[in-house]
Amino acid sequence: MLNYRKDLEKMPSYDGTEKDYRIKVNANESTLNLPPLVEERVINRLSYIAFNRYPNEEYDSLVEQIARNFSVGKNQILLGGGSSEIIEKVFHAFGGEGKKIVYPQPSFSMYKIYAKAADAQAFPFDLDEKFDLDVDAFIKKVREVNADLAVVCNPNNPTGNALTVAQIEEITKNIDCALLLDEAYVEFYGRSAFGLIKNYLNLIVARTFSKAYGMAAARVGYMIAQEEVTRMINKTFMPYHMNVLSLAAADIVYQMRDEFVPRIQMTVAERQRIFEQLKNLREIEVFPSQTNFILIRYEKAAALNEYLESLGIGVRHFSANAPGLKNCLRISMGTRIENDEVFSAIKNFVAGKQ
Amino acid sequence: MLNYRKDLEKMPSYDGTEKDYRIKVNANESTLNLPPLVEERVINRLSYIAFNRYPNEEYDSLVEQIARNFSVGKNQILLGGGSSEIIEKVFHAFGGEGKKIVYPQPSFSMYKIYAKAADAQAFPFDLDEKFDLDVDAFIKKVREVNADLAVVCNPNNPTGNALTVAQIEEITKNIDCALLLDEAYVEFYGRSAFGLIKNYLNLIVARTFSKAYGMAAARVGYMIAQEEVTRMINKTFMPYHMNVLSLAAADIVYQMRDEFVPRIQMTVAERQRIFEQLKNLREIEVFPSQTNFILIRYEKAAALNEYLESLGIGVRHFSANAPGLKNCLRISMGTRIENDEVFSAIKNFVAGKQ
Repeated sequence: MLNYRKDLEKMPSYDGTEKDYRIKVNANESTLNLPPLVEERVINRLSYIAFNRYPNEEYDSLVEQIARNFSVGKNQILLGGGSSEIIEKVFHAFGGEGKKIVYPQPSFSMYKIYAKAADAQAFPFDLDEKFDLDVDAFIKKVREVNADLAVVCNPNNPTGNALTVAQIEEITKNIDCALLLDEAYVEFYGRSAFGLIKNYLNLIVARTFSKAYGMAAARVGYMIAQEEVTRMINKTFMPYHMNVLSLAAADIVYQMRDEFVPRIQMTVAERQRIFEQLKNLREIEVFPSQTNFILIRYEKAAALNEYLESLGIGVRHFSANAPGLKNCLRISMGTRIENDEVFSAIKNFVAGKQ
Repeated sequence: MLNYRKDLEKMPSYDGTEKDYRIKVNANESTLNLPPLVEERVINRLSYIAFNRYPNEEYDSLVEQIARNFSVGKNQILLGGGSSEIIEKVFHAFGGEGKKIVYPQPSFSMYKIYAKAADAQAFPFDLDEKFDLDVDAFIKKVREVNADLAVVCNPNNPTGNALTVAQIEEITKNIDCALLLDEAYVEFYGRSAFGLIKNYLNLIVARTFSKAYGMAAARVGYMIAQEEVTRMINKTFMPYHMNVLSLAAADIVYQMRDEFVPRIQMTVAERQRIFEQLKNLREIEVFPSQTNFILIRYEKAAALNEYLESLGIGVRHFSANAPGLKNCLRISMGTRIENDEVFSAIKNFVAGKQ
């Protein structure tokens, strides 16, 4: 027997393989590949890469662009492999034996795993029955357990609802520890709290290219915080952790981010349209969303999920032990045609017409 | 003050920015970009990527190809962001409070940092004055400190020398803990010890696409071990840690790896040629190498380095506090023309003709 790290055996293993769905609306991905004009420029840029050289100026180039857009210093930005890696590293930076991390539940399911990977103690905080976060109670919990890191996902995945910037500020200023604000879906909401960073040392905002910018394949995310905080979190990243292909592609995408505005608007419009349609099905409870997905609750969720799968439609069905998500399905927005097909299928199932 | 992880402040920060050398032989990179035929197919493959989708079958596809080549099971291979990330994660998997890691010195300078990042205790083991590793003494040290992980870099960076496969086996079978064998440069040596894996549960071999395959920009490496070991180390990797662009590019490169044989042979031939030339300079001590670089020791190394920089030539000059590497310079092999220019510059400097 080899001497593995304590508790490593208890960590889960992942199997990334997925079924090949005809309509894939299970992972909150953009349903469209890059806009053709953007894709053309990305591929062109990739053809100029010196594959043989270690990453050098490509990291700085993207950091500079992001810093300029947010009017913050270059030393306030860090890049990671999706916001996933940003979250993983922030958890690590505030983790360790005896450290405590508070996060909402239900929310991004990986928070629990990242806490474990960081050797920290996880304190899930329950959202209310409408999936709203009680700000005062959350602050109280963070103070009570004497947390080292608090986490808020805004808008929240998988519930879709959002706190206002004022509520985020309320939390930030009333806790002493760091607050990681996961804004993976904020482009579909439109109200980022990054502006608070200049006033609060304890606020860290994580963003991603994976959702609104349709770059999940490239694994690029970033965080913004005060310089003193990025300096410390940067220590958790080893040299050359980002690859040039993804950096160069993200650099082009960020330069051309205006090209994504119409599709973000389309997604928001589709979300509203499908939300209204789902509301008309009285057997289904549908939750208001500020993201690119909609959460529903339905007594026969498991059977509905099976039916959708039989039609080649993949939605996200939460496992029976996902806290607070019993009988819930999460549906990412696709194109109008895809959404119509998904809705029809749900409507038919509910009406017993499958 | 925020409550960072214990000892995080003591971790170093990295600055990846480099000078823009005309002849860059400081990072053991391939001096050539991908072979044109390979590059064309890589770029073509990249143009088919669904940027908007999370990585899915691309990881498995590369794993299958590597497993087939080594005649091992798919579950014996893990991919990481360069062998750097493989090493980081293996250190983490055997690290933690009170865990001990033994590695040779001088060797890859990151071992010390990875040990610290893994919250483990680092035990450097000194190579002898010829930079050879005394196998018996190394085994004794590993057993004496009751190590949880031992590391050998073969051939060794930055010294260039190599152990035989028999010596690797000697170490593997005489220690109880895991042995991480870092074979980043093995393609220039030709004698991998991966064949020992079937007989030894404690052997883990790390390989990379960054050196012989000229893919440093893409950050792709892999490890091979027995299934039970990969299962455990896999737990240290979070989902979607690899990006599709790098995976797809590496997949093509690996399919076409025969295209790299001539340039590997050229590098080996150049290494021999330059080694013989350097040996003729009696002021300089030159160490035999089985890699794509050569280490030299010279009383005026700092001044020589400055002179080379003034000519736009970047070699690796080790800092004054790098143990065992006082007055040493490491020179990666470039093209024949580049190597000639570097050698002439050294020869001129040594002759006082600069």
